[in-house]
Amino acid sequence: MTALHDLIAGFAAIGATDDGGVCRLAATALDKRARDLFLREIGNRSLVPRIDAIGNMFGVAILDPAFDDVVITGSHLDSQPTGGRYDGAYGVLAGLLAVEAVRERCLANPGAARRNLAVANWTNEEGARFQPSLTGSSVFAGSLSLQDAYACADGDGVTLGAALAAIGYCGVTPLEYRPVRYVELHVEQGDRLEQVSGDIAAVSGAWMTRKISVVFEGDYSHTGPTPMPMRRDALRAAARAIEALYVEVAREDVGAHASAARINAYPNSPNVVAGRVRVWFEIRHEDEAAVVAISDRFLKRIEREAREIGVGISIAADDRRSAPLLDPDGVELILTVASDVGCKALTFKTITGHDALAIQKRIPASLIFVPSRGGLSHNPREFTAPEALDKGYAVLVETLWRMVTAA
Amino acid sequence: MTALHDLIAGFAAIGATDDGGVCRLAATALDKRARDLFLREIGNRSLVPRIDAIGNMFGVAILDPAFDDVVITGSHLDSQPTGGRYDGAYGVLAGLLAVEAVRERCLANPGAARRNLAVANWTNEEGARFQPSLTGSSVFAGSLSLQDAYACADGDGVTLGAALAAIGYCGVTPLEYRPVRYVELHVEQGDRLEQVSGDIAAVSGAWMTRKISVVFEGDYSHTGPTPMPMRRDALRAAARAIEALYVEVAREDVGAHASAARINAYPNSPNVVAGRVRVWFEIRHEDEAAVVAISDRFLKRIEREAREIGVGISIAADDRRSAPLLDPDGVELILTVASDVGCKALTFKTITGHDALAIQKRIPASLIFVPSRGGLSHNPREFTAPEALDKGYAVLVETLWRMVTAA
Repeated sequence: MTALHDLIAGFAAIGATDDGGVCRLAATALDKRARDLFLREIGNRSLVPRIDAIGNMFGVAILDPAFDDVVITGSHLDSQPTGGRYDGAYGVLAGLLAVEAVRERCLANPGAARRNLAVANWTNEEGARFQPSLTGSSVFAGSLSLQDAYACADGDGVTLGAALAAIGYCGVTPLEYRPVRYVELHVEQGDRLEQVSGDIAAVSGAWMTRKISVVFEGDYSHTGPTPMPMRRDALRAAARAIEALYVEVAREDVGAHASAARINAYPNSPNVVAGRVRVWFEIRHEDEAAVVAISDRFLKRIEREAREIGVGISIAADDRRSAPLLDPDGVELILTVASDVGCKALTFKTITGHDALAIQKRIPASLIFVPSRGGLSHNPREFTAPEALDKGYAVLVETLWRMVTAA
Repeated sequence: MTALHDLIAGFAAIGATDDGGVCRLAATALDKRARDLFLREIGNRSLVPRIDAIGNMFGVAILDPAFDDVVITGSHLDSQPTGGRYDGAYGVLAGLLAVEAVRERCLANPGAARRNLAVANWTNEEGARFQPSLTGSSVFAGSLSLQDAYACADGDGVTLGAALAAIGYCGVTPLEYRPVRYVELHVEQGDRLEQVSGDIAAVSGAWMTRKISVVFEGDYSHTGPTPMPMRRDALRAAARAIEALYVEVAREDVGAHASAARINAYPNSPNVVAGRVRVWFEIRHEDEAAVVAISDRFLKRIEREAREIGVGISIAADDRRSAPLLDPDGVELILTVASDVGCKALTFKTITGHDALAIQKRIPASLIFVPSRGGLSHNPREFTAPEALDKGYAVLVETLWRMVTAA
């Protein structure tokens, strides 16, 4: 599927990093370049372009003007700072080609289509520059207000609203058709398909994720003469907490995933004992009770260990993302399609968040995975073989065809 | 000494923070305001203004035009982000008034002066915005080249040279007199004077400081699906190292001071396991062997603990500041003066760096401490009582008088 591989390479050039990866943060000048190119690709295929107020972009194939309903496929074009070439871009670009392919098939089969079809690029899926993640799809689903989304600020205090306005992507042409189903194609970013040599996963739901941002409050003092027992070192308390997270997860021993990946220390001067440090923690597991048990014990422990050295803690954010199920009919359909086109398919829950999970709150949503080599993602070496990409594309096209033509 | 207290309050207003402290980083617009005011204060007192290429400022009292030699007193007007009102500013402003007072006394005693006298404000003592610290005084002493000093870059990549040029403080009028002695008055920033109710410390030398900046190299991956055993988490390795520093210092139990106060994680996104983290560590002790023993064992330990989780370490900077002695004649003189003016004085080594330590590499230098309440510094609550400031000022004036009039 040369067209797909060429599109992926073309978009990977926008924000390409020296090590083969992609750095294309949401609502930056590079994101604008990718969006502008996507808009041209939509136009090249005579799809109808639509952009809504939060910058979600759509390319609509009007398969039959008699119908109001639209099936949507897509993903996101923004990346992490250390992103790969496939995360998000694969789903948008395979979706673009799939919409075109389904339209051709409808032209060859007049009267078959009972719904229209659109490809989407959702704004700020990654949450690297603006938190929370899944911003555009959550606004689309109605679970996040446009106002709250616009107010999200990056590390420099620039809001998402201002950043979108600056690149000209606060749109005024929202999708006018009625969304009825969503299908997203994505690289797995884990190694479960690879472990069993599977081609396709029909994702049945998601693990629960608890995202806790903790502020450690000590006091500022000189790193030199201040007597050691007088120091109230917030960075030391944060360091203890980071290690404690791993220890608590290992102690529970139920296969939970956890991380502490973002830290801000203040004043972050080599000569001032840090008075305030914030750390972003995550705990994930399929079983919500396991997440709660681990995280509650973790919070008790770090509170105690911080207090021992004169540091207080407070919870700046505690975002419990429950473990939703994706549309079971979609899972069934994808498994059938995969079998029909000769792919080895299985089903499991996703550990990471995806736009499909946000959109499931509004309409039935489905998520299709293809393997990631070594389970590696958010890394310049993220890789999925061309043949594996093609298998995912084939399953997507057939799934979309059945969805738009089903009675 | 109302004039001194008023000057300190006036300068504390430039960069004043809501919590009563001062944030006036080197070569910023606020630093320019403080410098401009200092220049006006120099002019108000008819001292001769001089500014050298690295932005060091001088106000010279020509006590006798027949002499080329100059005694210098001073300190710095830059602060930490969480600085207090006294650190640096006290020495500059007391120095300004002391130069004026000594000149008056010389006018009343014609022929007494055998040297000239100047007050100095040294550039970037703090090292908060640009590392290394003691920049201006090190260039003055000849131990740091102007080129290397100009090349120091802040966190945004702005160089000290560019920042000084932007505020108009790359001077072209270096001090034309021959420096022969330096005396600096400063708040202690520790609690040793307070512990014994002392008024004055004649500082005899400095503790050794080893400043080690370590880079932890892991790999980027998704914080969600990446299997836990596959993660090479540089932030976890850094966290282990921060706690290990305190453990190793406590184990050695010889009264060393240590800190980890600055950390940079990359990409610092909540959803990407940190692939690269840099931490700035410091270990200080009077005995150089103790510093070397602690830090070498610390480095071995963190290398091993990082390797256990697939993270490598490399040393980005290893700055061993040996434990220099300050001019013993100066210590003797200050102790005598303190006794003569009725102050309780003692002598000990400073734990923190000061411009006097850099200048000692070129000419005999002395350092006078007054108490810091609770040993607190680099903190908005830094405080020294007005009467204690006055005692330091009295000792400084008498010391300078004896230095400029000595045979």
